[in-house]
Amino acid sequence: MIVRLCDNPRMSPATRISRAHCEALDRNDPLAFARARFELPEGLVYLDGNSLGALPRTTAQVMARTVTGEWGNGLIRSWNQAGWIALAVETGRRIARLIGVQSDEVIACDSTSINLFKLVAGAYSAARLQDPARKVILSEKGNFPTDLYMTEGLARLAGSDVELRWVEGEDLAAHFGSDVAVALFTQVDYRSGRVLDMAAMNRAARAAGHDIVWDLSHSAGALDLHLARDGAELAVGCGYKYLNGGPGAPAFAYVARARQASFPMILSGWMGHAAPFDFDPAYVPASHVGRFQCGTPSILALRALDEGVATFDGVDMAALRAKSLALSGLFWDLMETHCAGFGFVCISPRDTARRGSQLSFSHPQAWPIMQALIDRGVIGDFRAPDLLRFGFTPLYLRHANVWDAVMILREVMISGAWRAGRHQVRQAVT
Amino acid sequence: MIVRLCDNPRMSPATRISRAHCEALDRNDPLAFARARFELPEGLVYLDGNSLGALPRTTAQVMARTVTGEWGNGLIRSWNQAGWIALAVETGRRIARLIGVQSDEVIACDSTSINLFKLVAGAYSAARLQDPARKVILSEKGNFPTDLYMTEGLARLAGSDVELRWVEGEDLAAHFGSDVAVALFTQVDYRSGRVLDMAAMNRAARAAGHDIVWDLSHSAGALDLHLARDGAELAVGCGYKYLNGGPGAPAFAYVARARQASFPMILSGWMGHAAPFDFDPAYVPASHVGRFQCGTPSILALRALDEGVATFDGVDMAALRAKSLALSGLFWDLMETHCAGFGFVCISPRDTARRGSQLSFSHPQAWPIMQALIDRGVIGDFRAPDLLRFGFTPLYLRHANVWDAVMILREVMISGAWRAGRHQVRQAVT
Repeated sequence: MIVRLCDNPRMSPATRISRAHCEALDRNDPLAFARARFELPEGLVYLDGNSLGALPRTTAQVMARTVTGEWGNGLIRSWNQAGWIALAVETGRRIARLIGVQSDEVIACDSTSINLFKLVAGAYSAARLQDPARKVILSEKGNFPTDLYMTEGLARLAGSDVELRWVEGEDLAAHFGSDVAVALFTQVDYRSGRVLDMAAMNRAARAAGHDIVWDLSHSAGALDLHLARDGAELAVGCGYKYLNGGPGAPAFAYVARARQASFPMILSGWMGHAAPFDFDPAYVPASHVGRFQCGTPSILALRALDEGVATFDGVDMAALRAKSLALSGLFWDLMETHCAGFGFVCISPRDTARRGSQLSFSHPQAWPIMQALIDRGVIGDFRAPDLLRFGFTPLYLRHANVWDAVMILREVMISGAWRAGRHQVRQAVT
Repeated sequence: MIVRLCDNPRMSPATRISRAHCEALDRNDPLAFARARFELPEGLVYLDGNSLGALPRTTAQVMARTVTGEWGNGLIRSWNQAGWIALAVETGRRIARLIGVQSDEVIACDSTSINLFKLVAGAYSAARLQDPARKVILSEKGNFPTDLYMTEGLARLAGSDVELRWVEGEDLAAHFGSDVAVALFTQVDYRSGRVLDMAAMNRAARAAGHDIVWDLSHSAGALDLHLARDGAELAVGCGYKYLNGGPGAPAFAYVARARQASFPMILSGWMGHAAPFDFDPAYVPASHVGRFQCGTPSILALRALDEGVATFDGVDMAALRAKSLALSGLFWDLMETHCAGFGFVCISPRDTARRGSQLSFSHPQAWPIMQALIDRGVIGDFRAPDLLRFGFTPLYLRHANVWDAVMILREVMISGAWRAGRHQVRQAVT
């Protein structure tokens, strides 16, 4: 019903929505069971799980066992006995279901930036070998900075004739062509939450004869993804946002099975070798997705990520997506009803097919307003220059939380609480 | 005294050494206090801290606090409030002392393989820009495989005219020259424990006009290192061996301050940006060592590494080196006295100036013998094709442990216990 409201903003009966109504929605929420899988501080409304996912209830115990039992007592033996050696592949297997690919097509390792480099550099090398005229690495001007930065470094190493081309606009596929070696797009824009049409863009890229590397950092664990169905063969994603893997958790990389064997290995570390403990001086990559590992993975970080991904066990991803849209739709409706006239302008798509799992509102006082909200237990984040960003994590967020968040924002605006001096001070991480 | 014994093997009075004598050495050990900083299973003799360091006593508690307090309760706020944003630099600062460089010249992040790539690729790019005739990446044939593998990938991306040249022999500097873009050496050989003369090789490289990137994986935390004094400007090292950072802990990178500002950034991720949270589409690296970060670091992994490095607080590195040599000298002497005639051949340097913190013995039955030892609570490791490797970690190893290890090995050989069928089965990690 909420989704329908968003589609018809003029007819919005949001004025009739009450907290009691939200609580009723929570009682009927098919994903309500998942909330118990998380530790959340009492009274906090956490709308920043798109930046750092909440702590799963089981993680502390798993970490204690890993540290004290596996490391402390098992010591080096735990690489075999506790299954450390297979952990990157096992965690990848769990992630595969969430993005709609086969279980042997995903590996959990390194950071998103590093995995981007592996896939973009590999796809670039393969394309150049086939056709030296393909010199362009194509991306979107507004892509997440690290995606662009990593290709800058790649170009620095690969040589002077690489061309980095950042484009913008509604029709990104219009820029595909025979001079493109590889394109790199983030499916869900980190500021606006806009969703690209992955299937259509993959079709266009295939016609133009080049790959797209997809960055799923704001998609995985938030959208109902079907990468295989939608023709995606290369993707990376983040472990510490919707996957709840902990601060700076390992990321993941997806390479379609048909592409794995011939994919050029650029960050060719020993953990991706077919037989790392043979200490062969020549690099022979593993015949499976394990080849996309590089150095020795952090077992502590992987264990936490594995617990984070396990919070999706038994969760229907279509139901998750429906709840995500219901939550963002509710937030938007309540903002229009209760925060009209305060100067907030939503820059996220109204169209639910194009909307990720977040809403962003521009406001000239976005920074101090967000600080005042945080001070009152509503945690979203600020994105330069003027955005308040609110993320909706269907596993642990309730409709009543959305109600409370908007009411507290209204109170902050009416009271002018954001004008307090302490809210003006900018911090390192914003 | 032990060191003297090793230097004069024919005069070795090791037959007169008893367990009581070893215990007396332990009582007079100026580093004995450090043993209490570790959790070690009762009765185990752990001679594999050169592969995975033991668990520091404080790590479990720090991890619990980080997981439950900082992540669970602090959530996204902990990037500022718990100092996560500065952790890679702070841990680097602690490591700096251990390798003899300034505190603002080391960063803890990523894996050894990734950091190698950053430094070798950057040094290579800088050299090629100055002199296109410098096409060679030089290394040692017996270097640790990942060091060689990473340069293979680098060459694949950088273009067909890069030449990877692997050399061997006593005089590696004889291969330095005007065609070399960058050289890459591991100071302590992972099999034999042989130590390269860093100062002499750096002088030779400087004369030849190229950099050496040093891999300190088997040096940092085991040797008395003075990289600045010895003319090293670029190095990487491992966090999970002697630094006790836990399985797959983040590694570190050292770049001398004078080189930082102009060093080409190849893995140019957003965490190395001068202002990551400005989300600038153009990459501008930080003005300090933080630029050598790439993606978002794993905070759980970094916290554990930080605790591991803290086990060196107040430890005099010259005393550490002296104890390391005393332990390996004692082991060698006892082997000659009590395990003569069993077919063990030590391949490690007798010369203490050339010996790392390990001893390796070749034996045709190295694999099953090591399994029998592990079964009896003496943990070393096997390195293909025929090496038993024993590491000496001065912070937590006692002279009496060395005595026990050799006596148990003697018992294994006399009894033929290694012939048991279960010891013949090879496992994934060896």
